Amino acid sequence: MELAIVGLGRMGGNMVKRLLRDGHRVVAYNRSPGPVREAEAAGAIGAYSLEEVVERLSPPRVVWLMVPAGEPTEQMVERFAALLGSGDILIDGGNSYWKDSVRRAEWLRERGIQFLDVGTSGGIWGLELGYCLMIGGEEAAFRIVEPAFRTLAPENGYRHVGPSGAGHFAKMVHNGIEYGLMQAYAEGFEILQASPYKYDLSGLANLWNHGSVIRSWLLELAERAFRRDPRLESIRGYVEDSGEGRWTVLTAIEEDVPAPVITLSLQMRFRSRQADSFAAKVAAALRREFGGHAVVTAETTHDEDT
Amino acid sequence: MELAIVGLGRMGGNMVKRLLRDGHRVVAYNRSPGPVREAEAAGAIGAYSLEEVVERLSPPRVVWLMVPAGEPTEQMVERFAALLGSGDILIDGGNSYWKDSVRRAEWLRERGIQFLDVGTSGGIWGLELGYCLMIGGEEAAFRIVEPAFRTLAPENGYRHVGPSGAGHFAKMVHNGIEYGLMQAYAEGFEILQASPYKYDLSGLANLWNHGSVIRSWLLELAERAFRRDPRLESIRGYVEDSGEGRWTVLTAIEEDVPAPVITLSLQMRFRSRQADSFAAKVAAALRREFGGHAVVTAETTHDEDT
Amino acid sequence: MELAIVGLGRMGGNMVKRLLRDGHRVVAYNRSPGPVREAEAAGAIGAYSLEEVVERLSPPRVVWLMVPAGEPTEQMVERFAALLGSGDILIDGGNSYWKDSVRRAEWLRERGIQFLDVGTSGGIWGLELGYCLMIGGEEAAFRIVEPAFRTLAPENGYRHVGPSGAGHFAKMVHNGIEYGLMQAYAEGFEILQASPYKYDLSGLANLWNHGSVIRSWLLELAERAFRRDPRLESIRGYVEDSGEGRWTVLTAIEEDVPAPVITLSLQMRFRSRQADSFAAKVAAALRREFGGHAVVTAETTHDEDT
Amino acid sequence: MELAIVGLGRMGGNMVKRLLRDGHRVVAYNRSPGPVREAEAAGAIGAYSLEEVVERLSPPRVVWLMVPAGEPTEQMVERFAALLGSGDILIDGGNSYWKDSVRRAEWLRERGIQFLDVGTSGGIWGLELGYCLMIGGEEAAFRIVEPAFRTLAPENGYRHVGPSGAGHFAKMVHNGIEYGLMQAYAEGFEILQASPYKYDLSGLANLWNHGSVIRSWLLELAERAFRRDPRLESIRGYVEDSGEGRWTVLTAIEEDVPAPVITLSLQMRFRSRQADSFAAKVAAALRREFGGHAVVTAETTHDEDT
Repeated sequence: MELAIVGLGRMGGNMVKRLLRDGHRVVAYNRSPGPVREAEAAGAIGAYSLEEVVERLSPPRVVWLMVPAGEPTEQMVERFAALLGSGDILIDGGNSYWKDSVRRAEWLRERGIQFLDVGTSGGIWGLELGYCLMIGGEEAAFRIVEPAFRTLAPENGYRHVGPSGAGHFAKMVHNGIEYGLMQAYAEGFEILQASPYKYDLSGLANLWNHGSVIRSWLLELAERAFRRDPRLESIRGYVEDSGEGRWTVLTAIEEDVPAPVITLSLQMRFRSRQADSFAAKVAAALRREFGGHAVVTAETTHDEDT
Repeated sequence: MELAIVGLGRMGGNMVKRLLRDGHRVVAYNRSPGPVREAEAAGAIGAYSLEEVVERLSPPRVVWLMVPAGEPTEQMVERFAALLGSGDILIDGGNSYWKDSVRRAEWLRERGIQFLDVGTSGGIWGLELGYCLMIGGEEAAFRIVEPAFRTLAPENGYRHVGPSGAGHFAKMVHNGIEYGLMQAYAEGFEILQASPYKYDLSGLANLWNHGSVIRSWLLELAERAFRRDPRLESIRGYVEDSGEGRWTVLTAIEEDVPAPVITLSLQMRFRSRQADSFAAKVAAALRREFGGHAVVTAETTHDEDT
Repeated sequence: MELAIVGLGRMGGNMVKRLLRDGHRVVAYNRSPGPVREAEAAGAIGAYSLEEVVERLSPPRVVWLMVPAGEPTEQMVERFAALLGSGDILIDGGNSYWKDSVRRAEWLRERGIQFLDVGTSGGIWGLELGYCLMIGGEEAAFRIVEPAFRTLAPENGYRHVGPSGAGHFAKMVHNGIEYGLMQAYAEGFEILQASPYKYDLSGLANLWNHGSVIRSWLLELAERAFRRDPRLESIRGYVEDSGEGRWTVLTAIEEDVPAPVITLSLQMRFRSRQADSFAAKVAAALRREFGGHAVVTAETTHDEDT
Repeated sequence: MELAIVGLGRMGGNMVKRLLRDGHRVVAYNRSPGPVREAEAAGAIGAYSLEEVVERLSPPRVVWLMVPAGEPTEQMVERFAALLGSGDILIDGGNSYWKDSVRRAEWLRERGIQFLDVGTSGGIWGLELGYCLMIGGEEAAFRIVEPAFRTLAPENGYRHVGPSGAGHFAKMVHNGIEYGLMQAYAEGFEILQASPYKYDLSGLANLWNHGSVIRSWLLELAERAFRRDPRLESIRGYVEDSGEGRWTVLTAIEEDVPAPVITLSLQMRFRSRQADSFAAKVAAALRREFGGHAVVTAETTHDEDT
């Protein structure tokens, strides 16, 4: 089929390749022209403005956004709303907040434009293995884009999961679960690493992936990470987060649903980014006040206390 | 090779079958004789006393215990210590506490008997798919039993992971991680289930297993569970635990390692088994005391408050 | 001084009494007229419409709202914005979200009206003991209302804590801390109650309030609650929340600050309100899938499993 | 009355002073002789060996241990068991594990010696304000020592709470609660400190202590700490723990009681003592594996990432 990919970053660029490889006609656009030229070299039809994107497609046009969530996506939606026509389809494949997607779908619907929110998982492995696609929006629009979904996903790896917002909601929860899974493995490996046994963590991860209850793709990745650096000495325990975990917690709170593990996983990431903890300072100060317990002063160097 | 399986419950019985199927000579013992006769019918050599177990094996004898952790295992170790001779090998394939295994290994070593602690994962699927085996103890004893390990495990599914106790320690942490993974998925599915979207949870689990970052065997099992009962209406949220999660938390505390996600997963299981929470009563009582807030009385029927 | 109290519920009504008792001239308004008549009987000047409220005050008018947060407060702010004049002061003494207070202060400032956000703690005890008042807004407005603050609070119990929003922000965090304190005591009492020792919980609470590190007003209230009902048999462990705990968690997440104890305290309240836990169902279902473990079925009556 | 204090550290030394001040006859012993001489100068009867302790008392002798929990207490109990006679009373006023106290009470009972386990709270403030005493053991022994309890405690500050072990169990839970309270306040102050409002934290703690729901002695101490160092810049967020919090968690797990807030408070202390988190390294490594996300390398200096 024919569609445009807008945003040729790590994800968008790979998706163009995967689509071209399967014979689709792909219009490729990026804010900076370099990646467009690369895409052209790979067989895509380059577009150097949003107007060109629309011109190079025939109705019903399918435009797939792969730009950062928040303002960049908001602006793209607004600009394409002015350029696309009735019956055209706009897809947001980024990590947008599901309530934004509900709002955008409604706003575009009033303008005759169909909207699909597509939660996309797979990371840098998607090019080779395919992306898992959770798709929200109208069934009719889903059917039109299905040939592209089939190409981008592995077998059984795409699905229409509900009305507008349902795709990004599912992706949000997916990432919340992901935080919890990562933290569970991480705690387990720390307990192993702190034990008297000098475990080969890569070997153990490999072993567990053969027949144990906890086998998973993340555990395969853990095996790779430990094989490369058995005690992870080259990296710091500094863990970013990209928003979906926060939204999962907020959504759980709005639903009155307890989600302690997902929440703690997020908060331990916050803690990992603090050089020192103000809360811990307060606790240390209180212990000094009531018990006369010694505190570690700010001047103490890092090595003394470990 | 030749070995005895002592304890023909769900796990032990299946292991006998898997060993026989691959041509091993298996002596089978169980406290009650019924499962022994079944094993005989399947090709095993029955033994109706521990003495018979030892008589039917030739040195170096290999006796593999598959009995419940705690007292039953303790008694079996003591009784076999009196029956086995120098160079014989006793294996504990149950879910024993790793410190017990360290102690037993030392105690048996003084008696000339070798001990292997084998953490065994795979559940009821082990018969078909093989068991993941985490093996602690002397390398020499491991080598002797390796043909049986190779049969019981799937390819690459067994490994000598360290000295005595290392097998059960690894299994303990494995189960701690398992608790965390299960709770992470469980919270995610609850957030989905409480959402305005009427997700097909089985379909979503299936989808996530094709290309997403959170694909895993547990998620495949979740898909099966939701396929059978889409909203889990037939079961209660009552979750048992079998000890390893507790030990993981205790070990983490002994190591000064924070393990919030594993700990919370255990504690939410405790909570699931409480018809009412005394702590919540205290909180409700305090709210009434300071704010005059209404409490739900004990007489209120269950349905009114939900 | 002279001021109006708008909203004569449990808090507002008591505040009127406390103000009258100290000789202030109080205009009292309530949506339904009953409480206005009661206030009149106690010495207040009744007002039966917002217009009357404004008429009965002389500039600079001080109008103190004690109405529920959210829509009711929003509407009152809008209506008084139309009635009050330049230099008048509007106070929100309810539990509003601090970002709403920042917004309202700015909006009123454009209309020449000063705004104070006053976090108010003390519950039903405030009438007798005084209310703790955390006050945000302009210093000048604070000075004008200070005589009323002095009356309403116990000695040293009111304070200008910062610009607009700072009062409600402080009150929000106050309540988040409160959730954590309550949960900490509640868990401790549950551990005592589940112990082999048949503790007199009221006596222990009383004891701890004399010289121990954990003495506090909440612990005094716990003593009262246990004295009345030693095992809290008359009430259910069903704990409501009124918003500030949620906002505290959201704010912590916005700040990238880990707040595990406050968060868990909120989430255990959510859990207390669930007759059954969907997450626990998922965990139970997974255990059955991999281990063949029995589940408790939905038909099982409540008593059997405890 | 007449009694011996064994162990003249910060707690024991102050207790001697408080007892002398109230007219009791106090025999004072310490492993090193310096503190004994000090106690003699203050009016105590010095003892330079355990034998002298016993000789200087008349039956029924009362010996109160204030030595560190674990081995030091164990040895003292064993040595006094050999020196004391039938009807004498041995008191453990330290932070012993309650199960040890149950065991010691039984062991001493067989030797005719009575044992009291006395949980003692109050820290360095006890000298001035009195200690809160939670007393386990036989009622008869409690009655004999009551005059000393009355002196050491503030009014209503001592109580016989149950049979042997009940005193230390209550103290253990007291400290578990204390961890939770401290963490709740600590998180609250961190949320305030990270806010756009430049709160005077000492002033806010002072304010909350006048009429708010969260007023407490710990909050008074927080006020002192912030007055001395408004942003706690002089100290590090490094928080020790002294055992009771761990035992509270273990006991909760043995009781199948969820105690998330107490547990998390303990684990955040563990985290505060880690210069880097291995679990966080694992999470960062996994993010790199699946998403190509950048990691912070070990070489990055501390300042760059905050």
